[in-house]
Amino acid sequence: MSFHFFCEQPVRWKDIDAAGVLNNAVYLTFVEQARFLYFRELGITQAEEFPFVLGETTARYLRPGRAGMTLSIGARVSRLGNKSFDMEYEVKHANVVLATVRATLVMVDAELRSTEIPDEFRTAVAGFEGIPERSA
Amino acid sequence: MSFHFFCEQPVRWKDIDAAGVLNNAVYLTFVEQARFLYFRELGITQAEEFPFVLGETTARYLRPGRAGMTLSIGARVSRLGNKSFDMEYEVKHANVVLATVRATLVMVDAELRSTEIPDEFRTAVAGFEGIPERSA
Amino acid sequence: MSFHFFCEQPVRWKDIDAAGVLNNAVYLTFVEQARFLYFRELGITQAEEFPFVLGETTARYLRPGRAGMTLSIGARVSRLGNKSFDMEYEVKHANVVLATVRATLVMVDAELRSTEIPDEFRTAVAGFEGIPERSA
Amino acid sequence: MSFHFFCEQPVRWKDIDAAGVLNNAVYLTFVEQARFLYFRELGITQAEEFPFVLGETTARYLRPGRAGMTLSIGARVSRLGNKSFDMEYEVKHANVVLATVRATLVMVDAELRSTEIPDEFRTAVAGFEGIPERSA
Repeated sequence: MSFHFFCEQPVRWKDIDAAGVLNNAVYLTFVEQARFLYFRELGITQAEEFPFVLGETTARYLRPGRAGMTLSIGARVSRLGNKSFDMEYEVKHANVVLATVRATLVMVDAELRSTEIPDEFRTAVAGFEGIPERSA
Repeated sequence: MSFHFFCEQPVRWKDIDAAGVLNNAVYLTFVEQARFLYFRELGITQAEEFPFVLGETTARYLRPGRAGMTLSIGARVSRLGNKSFDMEYEVKHANVVLATVRATLVMVDAELRSTEIPDEFRTAVAGFEGIPERSA
Repeated sequence: MSFHFFCEQPVRWKDIDAAGVLNNAVYLTFVEQARFLYFRELGITQAEEFPFVLGETTARYLRPGRAGMTLSIGARVSRLGNKSFDMEYEVKHANVVLATVRATLVMVDAELRSTEIPDEFRTAVAGFEGIPERSA
Repeated sequence: MSFHFFCEQPVRWKDIDAAGVLNNAVYLTFVEQARFLYFRELGITQAEEFPFVLGETTARYLRPGRAGMTLSIGARVSRLGNKSFDMEYEVKHANVVLATVRATLVMVDAELRSTEIPDEFRTAVAGFEGIPERSA
């Protein structure tokens, strides 16, 4: 996969579980962190708030993560729908992919009701990624 | 969905994130807890150790969870393969489904290498679930 | 110690760290959960919000916690000051104390500025605990 | 305070709780991470294992932490006793102290029984910190 956005995140000792590996749930936290930083870089997310919620995530676990690793997380928007969009993520350590994650996110209003993706969001993301402003 | 195994788990105040809802990663932790208790009930898991690792998880988020809720988590094994098996989970609050999760788990040896599902594991799970001991 | 308020909380598999014991930080989460439920029972805390912040916590770790344990957490307010109050907590498993925690909490307004403890808060807590409404 | 060891750690979006600030328990996780890296730098800690356990921690919360901050955590050993030692930590953002933590750690053997601090540990730490090898 190729990404225009990356961030680096250290694995914390506490992220390691009783099995001695980076716990599966923490990958969703790394991916969420990459999402937060991605939309902050695009000037869309302010402070602690997102204008969308997760609809679905699929995580594939390929290699175990360990304490003390610094991970590189690639993030991209791969599809802009009418009211939802898709993101893909790749979690790597030293060029080895530990996990990949796909997510579908749903645009919401202040009452968490599904709403259309605003034009400025659409334009900013499509421009950054080089993808169509609207997909099927 | 119908389940032969359930457990109840309280949502902690800390499980609620800055968006005011049960954080997406915590669902994987609830599901992991249900898996731990499921295999403990079947007499397969000792203490803190699992004889398998996660290959893939897919979580669908349907309704927001809130602080103070007690959740009911249904868990079942839906397929027993040669070296892997599938599980399904349903996270409910007062009969409302908040999320569903599907997971593929891979049997491993002490060095985390993929290995065949042992017969006693296969028999115990198939008997509990009423499913074939071996699926395609 | 004697407590008028208790809650039960299960240890999650993920609460266990790479050392095989209930991670030290999670005790603060259990204590926070007891605090949330304590003030909800007293009718003071609504939803996800507290009218106070932590000033200081001291945790003493006495025995290791393990996966699958259900813990009983006792909580009480031991002092009501002018703008702050003290709480004490005891985390037990089957009558064995695993940890004790002391906390000083500071009443705050919506901008997180220190403020006087309101009278209704003071009356409710002092009545529940059988302690003076105002201490030195 | 002055420290010979520092590490930088990003606040994750998930570290922010429903009150909109860096959750109190996460400070213990940052401090644990600094401890892990401190002893790894001194060549004492291997992989995921520590030869000691926490006896007590005291955390003072001074300023709220926020999502997206990168924190600097100073760590030092301030006392080497017979079977226990003390550490101090300072968690800062851009030269503002958010929290300080003091911890007492107890040396243990493989069965988690209290044991004397080994000489090589004592020498390595005292040399790094410029403190006496043995305190009252």
